[in-house]
Amino acid sequence: MTYAKPLTMLLQALERLPGIGPRSAERIAFYLLRTSREEARQLAQAIVDVKERLRFCTLCFNLSEADRCPVCQDPARDPSIICVVEEPKDVLAIEKTGSFRGLYHVLLGAIAPLEGVGPELLKIDELLHRLSEGTVQEVIVATDADKDGEITAAHLSKLIRGKPIRLTRIASGIPVGSHLEYADQATLARALEGRRELF
Amino acid sequence: MTYAKPLTMLLQALERLPGIGPRSAERIAFYLLRTSREEARQLAQAIVDVKERLRFCTLCFNLSEADRCPVCQDPARDPSIICVVEEPKDVLAIEKTGSFRGLYHVLLGAIAPLEGVGPELLKIDELLHRLSEGTVQEVIVATDADKDGEITAAHLSKLIRGKPIRLTRIASGIPVGSHLEYADQATLARALEGRRELF
Repeated sequence: MTYAKPLTMLLQALERLPGIGPRSAERIAFYLLRTSREEARQLAQAIVDVKERLRFCTLCFNLSEADRCPVCQDPARDPSIICVVEEPKDVLAIEKTGSFRGLYHVLLGAIAPLEGVGPELLKIDELLHRLSEGTVQEVIVATDADKDGEITAAHLSKLIRGKPIRLTRIASGIPVGSHLEYADQATLARALEGRRELF
Repeated sequence: MTYAKPLTMLLQALERLPGIGPRSAERIAFYLLRTSREEARQLAQAIVDVKERLRFCTLCFNLSEADRCPVCQDPARDPSIICVVEEPKDVLAIEKTGSFRGLYHVLLGAIAPLEGVGPELLKIDELLHRLSEGTVQEVIVATDADKDGEITAAHLSKLIRGKPIRLTRIASGIPVGSHLEYADQATLARALEGRRELF
């Protein structure tokens, strides 16, 4: 005797999701078995909808319901500055600050040698293609400040250096509102290194 | 700017699942966005199928594709012994041992005072109803050996004691193949308490 076929199929499908092992898959499957038919239907529908209605912007790979994302479609944005991020959620985070008026380029990941993610799996060729068109004057590399993000930034730097484009990296340092004594050594070292003139 | 509607809906649906917080929901949602349409469709279909094709056995509350589960339908099983477990997966675990030939009763949970799960949420009335029919001669309480499982066992004992039915509890003790020195104190104390004659 094993689990009935529909349950086995669900467990297999759940275990393919990131961060879901056999235990969590079981927990979720039994939850779905017990919850209302309506809630289960909503989840299934949401999965289908997200695949059918959302895609990646063909220019910048941000999430979009149309061919071009709302940022790329906005004529008020400055096409001469491109901010390079790892994920669509990073676009959202930067948009929330309201302090960037250029366009984005989403790499859809970061170079992660330990996980076998090489540059060829990211949208780097597509970025170089955009740069080759001559409109872009500055590229801000806003990949994460972790190891993979830094490796990715270094890789981009190698590819873009030499082109007539200003290449910048967002600053690392003490988080705003945080105490110096709580900063880890690496952050503090970076903060010192990245010091600016005080006007 | 926020996430597009389909993504927001998916995140909300995912966050309702047990053990899935905002971070894991995001991770899963972006995974689904990037995976093949076929894999996403399979997951959605598996969720729908499990709700439409699986239900709980009307007699013992084991999972079943029919009104009665395969165990309850099997004429070779001994209806005079009922093994009470917390979850359908416990039925599977016991079936795998091949050493039980009676029927089951799945409580669909355990009494958990800290989580607000009282006996009224479990299939206890249904168990008492089965016992009242006079066929059952032994009830083996095989709830988990943790706190909730023991509370549940004690509660069942109070309800069944006094009826002309043998009431037993599965043994706690040193796991087979494991060393005495590695057993925790509670397990060791239980193992001593539950000692048997050596023939």
